[in-house]
Amino acid sequence: MPDKMTDLIEELALANRILAHEGVLDGFGHVSVRHPTDPGRYLLSRSRSPLLIEPDDILEYTLDSEPVRPPKALLYAERVIHGCIYQARSDVRAVCHHHAPAVMPFCIAGKPIVPVFHLGAAGGLDMPFWDQQDEFGDTNLLVVKQEEGHSLARALGQHPAVLLNRHGATVVGGSLKELVSRSIFMCQNADYQLRAMALGTPDPLRPGEVELAGVLGMLPNVVSRTWEYWSMRLEAAGGMPPRRSSAKAARRPVPKSARVTPRERRKGRRR
Amino acid sequence: MPDKMTDLIEELALANRILAHEGVLDGFGHVSVRHPTDPGRYLLSRSRSPLLIEPDDILEYTLDSEPVRPPKALLYAERVIHGCIYQARSDVRAVCHHHAPAVMPFCIAGKPIVPVFHLGAAGGLDMPFWDQQDEFGDTNLLVVKQEEGHSLARALGQHPAVLLNRHGATVVGGSLKELVSRSIFMCQNADYQLRAMALGTPDPLRPGEVELAGVLGMLPNVVSRTWEYWSMRLEAAGGMPPRRSSAKAARRPVPKSARVTPRERRKGRRR
Amino acid sequence: MPDKMTDLIEELALANRILAHEGVLDGFGHVSVRHPTDPGRYLLSRSRSPLLIEPDDILEYTLDSEPVRPPKALLYAERVIHGCIYQARSDVRAVCHHHAPAVMPFCIAGKPIVPVFHLGAAGGLDMPFWDQQDEFGDTNLLVVKQEEGHSLARALGQHPAVLLNRHGATVVGGSLKELVSRSIFMCQNADYQLRAMALGTPDPLRPGEVELAGVLGMLPNVVSRTWEYWSMRLEAAGGMPPRRSSAKAARRPVPKSARVTPRERRKGRRR
Amino acid sequence: MPDKMTDLIEELALANRILAHEGVLDGFGHVSVRHPTDPGRYLLSRSRSPLLIEPDDILEYTLDSEPVRPPKALLYAERVIHGCIYQARSDVRAVCHHHAPAVMPFCIAGKPIVPVFHLGAAGGLDMPFWDQQDEFGDTNLLVVKQEEGHSLARALGQHPAVLLNRHGATVVGGSLKELVSRSIFMCQNADYQLRAMALGTPDPLRPGEVELAGVLGMLPNVVSRTWEYWSMRLEAAGGMPPRRSSAKAARRPVPKSARVTPRERRKGRRR
Repeated sequence: MPDKMTDLIEELALANRILAHEGVLDGFGHVSVRHPTDPGRYLLSRSRSPLLIEPDDILEYTLDSEPVRPPKALLYAERVIHGCIYQARSDVRAVCHHHAPAVMPFCIAGKPIVPVFHLGAAGGLDMPFWDQQDEFGDTNLLVVKQEEGHSLARALGQHPAVLLNRHGATVVGGSLKELVSRSIFMCQNADYQLRAMALGTPDPLRPGEVELAGVLGMLPNVVSRTWEYWSMRLEAAGGMPPRRSSAKAARRPVPKSARVTPRERRKGRRR
Repeated sequence: MPDKMTDLIEELALANRILAHEGVLDGFGHVSVRHPTDPGRYLLSRSRSPLLIEPDDILEYTLDSEPVRPPKALLYAERVIHGCIYQARSDVRAVCHHHAPAVMPFCIAGKPIVPVFHLGAAGGLDMPFWDQQDEFGDTNLLVVKQEEGHSLARALGQHPAVLLNRHGATVVGGSLKELVSRSIFMCQNADYQLRAMALGTPDPLRPGEVELAGVLGMLPNVVSRTWEYWSMRLEAAGGMPPRRSSAKAARRPVPKSARVTPRERRKGRRR
Repeated sequence: MPDKMTDLIEELALANRILAHEGVLDGFGHVSVRHPTDPGRYLLSRSRSPLLIEPDDILEYTLDSEPVRPPKALLYAERVIHGCIYQARSDVRAVCHHHAPAVMPFCIAGKPIVPVFHLGAAGGLDMPFWDQQDEFGDTNLLVVKQEEGHSLARALGQHPAVLLNRHGATVVGGSLKELVSRSIFMCQNADYQLRAMALGTPDPLRPGEVELAGVLGMLPNVVSRTWEYWSMRLEAAGGMPPRRSSAKAARRPVPKSARVTPRERRKGRRR
Repeated sequence: MPDKMTDLIEELALANRILAHEGVLDGFGHVSVRHPTDPGRYLLSRSRSPLLIEPDDILEYTLDSEPVRPPKALLYAERVIHGCIYQARSDVRAVCHHHAPAVMPFCIAGKPIVPVFHLGAAGGLDMPFWDQQDEFGDTNLLVVKQEEGHSLARALGQHPAVLLNRHGATVVGGSLKELVSRSIFMCQNADYQLRAMALGTPDPLRPGEVELAGVLGMLPNVVSRTWEYWSMRLEAAGGMPPRRSSAKAARRPVPKSARVTPRERRKGRRR
């Protein structure tokens, strides 16, 4: 299991940076992934801008959004978004909360994002809205209380995404890679939809088309192509995350066959 | 012929990257060119994002869009677009299918792109639309069946380009260079047309102007200038494709004087 | 005090470059900070584009916007904006005057920027306008006279920002970091507000939300994250300012133990 | 005089690249300057994209737009624009013809660009339009005949710029630096004006303001700041032009003191 854990942590750091580099995340926003073996925990960075996140920034949280180990750094204020959604949706393995410029006009005008091109179907039909004001009155609009997180999770329901009025969006996925492509395609869709309104009335996908096209982002053909593309763009910009530090990796139990015997250690043999 | 083939394959890789770097292609979309000597075949990359394509990714296809050699990699799902157009249009030597942000609003609002500046005339008058829904009902909007490809080719007719509702565009050219400039100018035209609508009613080129200006992109003056410009921009971004690998190039018939004799081979002499 | 001064000067150069790199400032615009120990003075660069400013460009001014030392370089024509606001607002420790593309449409159409997302609340409710024409008739629109500066400061009142018709914006902060984040968030807010109008009617924050969200930019959580993010982006673009030159730093009173005695000086000993 | 010539040629190459890097020119468009000592001639590059122009590309033309020396390269088709304007306007020392994305919507919708911010006043009041169709009927819209150039120059009249319907813009200046800043500020003005229309009705500068603000771009304060800024941005992108080649520079008369005597030459002495 430990290698799977290291891989997932490195993939999470990469996902953060890809989403930042592709314009979904900026100085704010965050991405989490459910723990690979314990569905009652999830992984999320300490409070840091997504473009800068390293594997060593990733912390483990309970579904109450409490850090499993005493934190040495500031935490994201809005981590209840993640915990509450993982509690409500056992099918969800990754969550992204963002304020992408492409979706903000929809969150501000209160107008629905509807699928207007094949890849945009990943956002699903009838994307719901959640207005913190409705249930909680005047707030600073940050989702920081458990009851706020649960309320948001209820608004999300079984949808792939929910829009937060005057705030941003929250997107979920059955895997980190599905989440990343859905988040990016949803922003492209929003951008195309808004600009199409300068020409006339957008003509959205039919419900049957949304259902059939909604899974395009998960075709092996598409996943391999997009992941290589987004990673390459990030790399070309000098933005690839470092590997997990060996100190952290050393926490994993060493398999018996690989253990150094006390005698070998005395002889100075090192792997 | 073999050198001509290598040149064309390298030009095709470059064309892919130029179109990606200039914002016509993104993670998706593809460009093909008809085989230089066998009009019954065409060249197209394996499934890969255009910005990353190398000469060694280029495969040879029949006009039924079957790979001539057993493929070792994933193929583009929508390659029938290319094969069906090469079947229908003997004058076409290059095809590009894309989802450029500049044209998407037109594909979504169902509004025609019309030439609004001299270089935009390369897109021609009365650019047709093709809606997959009309003939095939609900699909995932990918053009993957032969009958879908033939239907799209019929809609293209003798035009230089066709818009696919809720999907993207397909552009053709009498050469790779004509295709590249037409695709780029068409996106500029769409962008200018959309923004002109914020000011009032765009006043398009007269039909006589479209006819005279439609060939500007093929003037020696223009071709040499644009190809140098787009290549330089790509190079400045570190994006030039590698040359065709010598292993691949070695497939070409080796001239007699350069052949290794069986005796030399036994002695271990290698070129 | 001298180290505090050097730190502040270096932070001011960095603030200039961050605001330029994030699209608030361009070839024009300027940022000042109040003197760390003498509230009757402020620090501002010589006339130079903000992206290029170095600590050694920073000069000291009286609140009449006269340079404290005879200047060797050209000065900003509009520095009275800074002096007059520092005179009128003892709570203000930093001022930015800019012509960001995001706010210009509002300055031109005379339409108010209103907070439409949580971070945009930093701009406050009821942002005032100031039209130089009203009081001074035809000018070249530069704010260069003391009476123009005082008039602008009166229009600003107790607000965090004021819009200048057909010209730009002036923003204030209780610290350089508050000023930087407020300026950036205000531009994002303006951009989102304008694009939301393509969809319908923007639904702004409630007054209670503005009050609660207006201080988000000053949370330790947020300040540390954004400052690291903006600095990193600037650094990735190769744009970090140099340190203050040692020659300038040497102006600070030299501690006794480090002083060169007249005798040592005669012997040619130099630090 | 010869050094003045080299300086001007190098400044012209730099002006081309600055205008391309700032988004005024793209693969097309061109900038010329009147000959420093012979008002009957002007300097313009061979046919090449402006971002790539080197001092050695610059050729000398008569006001009939004929190259003074037999050209070894392709020439711009539209160079009559330059010659005809230099004939008509003795005050003009530099000309730029471009198709900047910012001005194209105005050329297409036939709506006037009006000064909406102080620096935009450089474009002047009542910018005229010229429609090639009016006088010449259907053309490919390129301005290639002497009579087309003269007609365009008449439309320009005493204005600083003229818009060409469905084509682009032509801008003039009393010096290269005035031309560069005017061209850039005019594009910014067009961009702000267009986006202000999404908010309401732009409120332009009063005629008296246009007159007073129209010369801002020529203040020493402004010229030094902008030229340093635009050059630095170009340099940061690796785009600075090379110096004029010594072979070309050697054409200039060598001062007596520096001349190599025949005797020295025989001895092989070389500077």
